[in-house]
Amino acid sequence: MSTKERGMIPGNEGAPWGWTDRHRSQHVAIVGATGAVGRELAQLLLAAEHPRERIDCLARRFGKLELALGRVKLDVRPLESTREATDFEGTDLAFLCTPSGISRELAPALCEAGVRVIDLSSALRMRPDVPLVVPEINGGELRGAPRLVANPNCTSAIAALPLAVVQRLFGLEELILVSYQAASGAGSAGIETLHYEAREASGAPAQGAPPQSPFVARLHQNVIPAVADVGPDGTSGEEQKICEELRKILGLPGLVVESTTARVPVERCHSVAIHCRLGADLDLDRLRAELARAPGLALTEDPHGPRPLECAGSDPVHVGRIRAGTRGKRSLCFFAVGDQIRKGAALNALQIAAALPAER
Amino acid sequence: MSTKERGMIPGNEGAPWGWTDRHRSQHVAIVGATGAVGRELAQLLLAAEHPRERIDCLARRFGKLELALGRVKLDVRPLESTREATDFEGTDLAFLCTPSGISRELAPALCEAGVRVIDLSSALRMRPDVPLVVPEINGGELRGAPRLVANPNCTSAIAALPLAVVQRLFGLEELILVSYQAASGAGSAGIETLHYEAREASGAPAQGAPPQSPFVARLHQNVIPAVADVGPDGTSGEEQKICEELRKILGLPGLVVESTTARVPVERCHSVAIHCRLGADLDLDRLRAELARAPGLALTEDPHGPRPLECAGSDPVHVGRIRAGTRGKRSLCFFAVGDQIRKGAALNALQIAAALPAER
Repeated sequence: MSTKERGMIPGNEGAPWGWTDRHRSQHVAIVGATGAVGRELAQLLLAAEHPRERIDCLARRFGKLELALGRVKLDVRPLESTREATDFEGTDLAFLCTPSGISRELAPALCEAGVRVIDLSSALRMRPDVPLVVPEINGGELRGAPRLVANPNCTSAIAALPLAVVQRLFGLEELILVSYQAASGAGSAGIETLHYEAREASGAPAQGAPPQSPFVARLHQNVIPAVADVGPDGTSGEEQKICEELRKILGLPGLVVESTTARVPVERCHSVAIHCRLGADLDLDRLRAELARAPGLALTEDPHGPRPLECAGSDPVHVGRIRAGTRGKRSLCFFAVGDQIRKGAALNALQIAAALPAER
Repeated sequence: MSTKERGMIPGNEGAPWGWTDRHRSQHVAIVGATGAVGRELAQLLLAAEHPRERIDCLARRFGKLELALGRVKLDVRPLESTREATDFEGTDLAFLCTPSGISRELAPALCEAGVRVIDLSSALRMRPDVPLVVPEINGGELRGAPRLVANPNCTSAIAALPLAVVQRLFGLEELILVSYQAASGAGSAGIETLHYEAREASGAPAQGAPPQSPFVARLHQNVIPAVADVGPDGTSGEEQKICEELRKILGLPGLVVESTTARVPVERCHSVAIHCRLGADLDLDRLRAELARAPGLALTEDPHGPRPLECAGSDPVHVGRIRAGTRGKRSLCFFAVGDQIRKGAALNALQIAAALPAER
């Protein structure tokens, strides 16, 4: 059943995502509200009927102090300090959609001031005392009502959701992940750059000045075979994160993860080709049945799907091309696509906030 | 050193590719000359200074009987029969840039009539009596002057070139290949479709009627996660070919190959992320040195390369992101990009023809 058939606002299918009156009574701050993820989060909060006057938008970028969300506009005020909680009087919960450097300073300051923090940057994800949560997988880690929770890297979150089902059924020994990551993984500048380049290459009239590209080369009709900086051992920062974060989220410290990440000219939705070696023999029928009923997942029977263009703006991680591998009875291949601004970032963060028990 | 710095015609760097006066004395036919590969082959023959009057272009498509190659035009005549050699009187060598169904009929008919055949379709590649050749790897199979030679699938040829070096140094036990394949892998219609969709999405003025798309969905700003039809076991035709052909080209019938193929919105050049399990411990320095001097390969030190846009129109298979895997000392990852119309098809076929000894 499509979104349209259910008579819902496109892209807000799952609203209100467990967001109740208890949550709506909180004063919520979005730091980095003008970025791609902050903007999406504001949109999700409004869709979950959070009162406008209890959404406080902050950003460092000046000159863009209004945010249009559908027909709603929210004021955005400048963040004055990244080291003190002075900007957050009366805030109950803050979402940090900020670069790691800012989160590293701001998150502890806010916690100390009694503000609950969900940090979407990579700054604190691997700290042993900070839970790294995809609610459908390890939401149990929120039971103790931690004041600070980290939201995973977008590719990690998207891959983790189907992998948790595979792990539960057969165990996981070894993973190869190869990604096709969207321009918007690099934020609004990524989207703007891709569209600018596409217009330019197609001879369409230019719309404004060329944006500052976050990519090392033209992305339109290209593939850039490493996301983030590449370290001395040849592994990219994104590949490193995927490896470490999957181990932490899945609770498998010994899991072997090898990956190649690449940026592709897609606006939204990361795709991942996953080749697994299991701990037990694969049973395809059982796997399909479990994937079909697992929360947060959508199974496609389209032999040429799922595809990022069609999955953009939807809640679940879409899984398809499920097949036995050629490396014996314990090998499995599949393809997963998720909207990385949504389940890979803003939606997952909102779900964490929804699942957090009230502080005692 | 770039093509420009060497003062060469862009895209014709390696000309004449071993094409000598002995080859230029042959009457050569290109069947399927109006397709993307046939067109490229005609261009390469001209760059190799093959006399125009000894290039005979045939095609089934009517109404497009002239072919512009730079400033040169070649007549294209219709192919009257796919079952008899009647169209090929006086032809010494025929390149079949034709669909499998046509090659399957035409290749034996031509051989019987004494015409040498290089077939670029998949029709005969896996026949035990037909050599499947990438000259840099198994050019030795041409020594017996076979009348019929098969040219590999484009992705197989591109992957095989660096893999042959890896195999020679360390042995290969298991491969995972994940592809990012260009629109032109589906021929001229693929390129036209991609550009039409990009113009349409960018609001550029339409140029002519929409082409008939060879893809199951819009490719512009999308990823289609299976190239060719998907069989009942979930493997796509392209994935099947890659597996079978790599075994044959590399001479490793027991090699385990697992792959995911996907189409990406790129005009030319297939990219492949390759994760290998070796037969011996990896020595990265030795591998880099050997890849750098192997014929047909170009090593890049760009941490975010090679990229298809920049490799388009060039001869070699470009290799980069060479690094140790995380699956022990015998694991290796790298990224390869090749112009699949060129080394993946037309150029490889020309190199086969150049390497074929005179018939006795």
